Amino acid sequence: MSAWRERYDDYAKQCDKAIDQVFSDNAAMHPMMRDAMRYSLFAGGKRLRGVLLLASYVLFKQNIERALPYAAAMEMIHCYSLIHDDLPAMDDDDYRRGNPTSHKVFGEANAILAGDALLNLAYETMVSAAIKDEKSDLALSAMQKIARSAGASGMIGGQAADIESEKTQKADEKTLYYIHSHKTAALIEASVIAGAILAGASLKEQHALMVYASQLGLSFQASDDILDVTGDQETMGKTLGKDEKAQKLTAVSLYGLEKARMLLRQEVQTAEDALAVFDEKADMLREIVRLNLSREK
Amino acid sequence: MSAWRERYDDYAKQCDKAIDQVFSDNAAMHPMMRDAMRYSLFAGGKRLRGVLLLASYVLFKQNIERALPYAAAMEMIHCYSLIHDDLPAMDDDDYRRGNPTSHKVFGEANAILAGDALLNLAYETMVSAAIKDEKSDLALSAMQKIARSAGASGMIGGQAADIESEKTQKADEKTLYYIHSHKTAALIEASVIAGAILAGASLKEQHALMVYASQLGLSFQASDDILDVTGDQETMGKTLGKDEKAQKLTAVSLYGLEKARMLLRQEVQTAEDALAVFDEKADMLREIVRLNLSREK
Repeated sequence: MSAWRERYDDYAKQCDKAIDQVFSDNAAMHPMMRDAMRYSLFAGGKRLRGVLLLASYVLFKQNIERALPYAAAMEMIHCYSLIHDDLPAMDDDDYRRGNPTSHKVFGEANAILAGDALLNLAYETMVSAAIKDEKSDLALSAMQKIARSAGASGMIGGQAADIESEKTQKADEKTLYYIHSHKTAALIEASVIAGAILAGASLKEQHALMVYASQLGLSFQASDDILDVTGDQETMGKTLGKDEKAQKLTAVSLYGLEKARMLLRQEVQTAEDALAVFDEKADMLREIVRLNLSREK
Repeated sequence: MSAWRERYDDYAKQCDKAIDQVFSDNAAMHPMMRDAMRYSLFAGGKRLRGVLLLASYVLFKQNIERALPYAAAMEMIHCYSLIHDDLPAMDDDDYRRGNPTSHKVFGEANAILAGDALLNLAYETMVSAAIKDEKSDLALSAMQKIARSAGASGMIGGQAADIESEKTQKADEKTLYYIHSHKTAALIEASVIAGAILAGASLKEQHALMVYASQLGLSFQASDDILDVTGDQETMGKTLGKDEKAQKLTAVSLYGLEKARMLLRQEVQTAEDALAVFDEKADMLREIVRLNLSREK
């Protein structure tokens, strides 16, 4: 296994441990809520957002310890958004990564509450970490970036636009860009930038990472859209929702397969270029965005 | 109008203005999300939690300005919990305070997202206020209290227990106490204590307020339960859900009306006693808990 892959897996494991620690520290949780939250948190995600936060943090700092609660929080926010996305009133998905979704296991009411509880726990985790942090000003700035990216100006705004576009069947470049940059890229950006802010990165460094992260987010979504068309749904453990997801506005539905692939290559290139100001420490970030070129078999 | 009532109304108005300010400061929100969030936030609530935070804060400080973002945040958290509570998968309520509920107006998916966005905005608001606060350590401590009270160890835990009890039809004192102290009292406690923490109250002062607030929360729920049985549903603008809410575990269903009234009086008395250490500055808090004795006609 390549060095960066080993480091990725190590960071992902550290995220898992940090999440576990949060649950150990919160003994008073309602037992069923705890079960539902953990069920979705440990359902085989890649910890991309947590790892990105750590990978960005170590561009400037040696030890990831201090950044771990924020990485755990990013995973909680991502996880809550998936639980709510899967609900019957939203995408109505029975399976995610081959496992029954939260509402299939715990019922719809508990799935709604488990999502709420994860979002809340993300902030509780960050606030508790900030209290212990000697540089609580940086901790608060990182939290602000995360909060802005997760809310109605960011990810949730993108989810709302996605729902709206399915109703209106509006299919133009602006709508697609709004949805992808908000629904997918905002949280990926927040992960990268929050890691940098926490580590005390300069505004110039933050800007370079912002370009990287936004293109990473867009290319991640583009490769997802391409894979939805070209990939083998079965072996990837993906499932289509109950209604016709083919009608969804995607990079492929708007641009066609070839142009979508070209845009993907451009986004990956722009992301790599933005990392030029960093040395080999940024290799993991480089490899992560390159992965989006090789997800097609 | 009595002096404390005027002050209550003034604080409630200041909460409204603080909430409005947050929306002015967040111009980039998705328009439909903004509409849905504001629809529920300005649907005629009494701003009890926001006012409590301010009333507690002014026991120790002159000017409420600094506490306003936290009061606004408490109202956002309360509001999100109502939107999600009203969903078809939860209480399935079509009306709240005489107005159609969020999912009846904006659809279920948008109601779920609007709730999520309000919870997120509550933290964004507090974090942004803490960044500007000279005593960010107190701001963070107040946020921690709020986060713990709102999550799976607090309010959400109570909501989960409530759902569970409807399924199991378990009706004992312990279950009722868990539900009421978590689902209702936790957020009321958090409002009072967060105001005190932010103002730099001593642990002894916080403890007195904790006793007050927990009894306030319990008596508020008890008087609600009593009113559900004795009150005129129509004129109070309340609606029963579509399934048999009469089977719900309440203070009245468990103890009967007379014992429930006695417990209510005890809770109000205990709350008043706890305020004895404070002078006439605490009169508004005294009057607020006494209201629970006079809600029956």
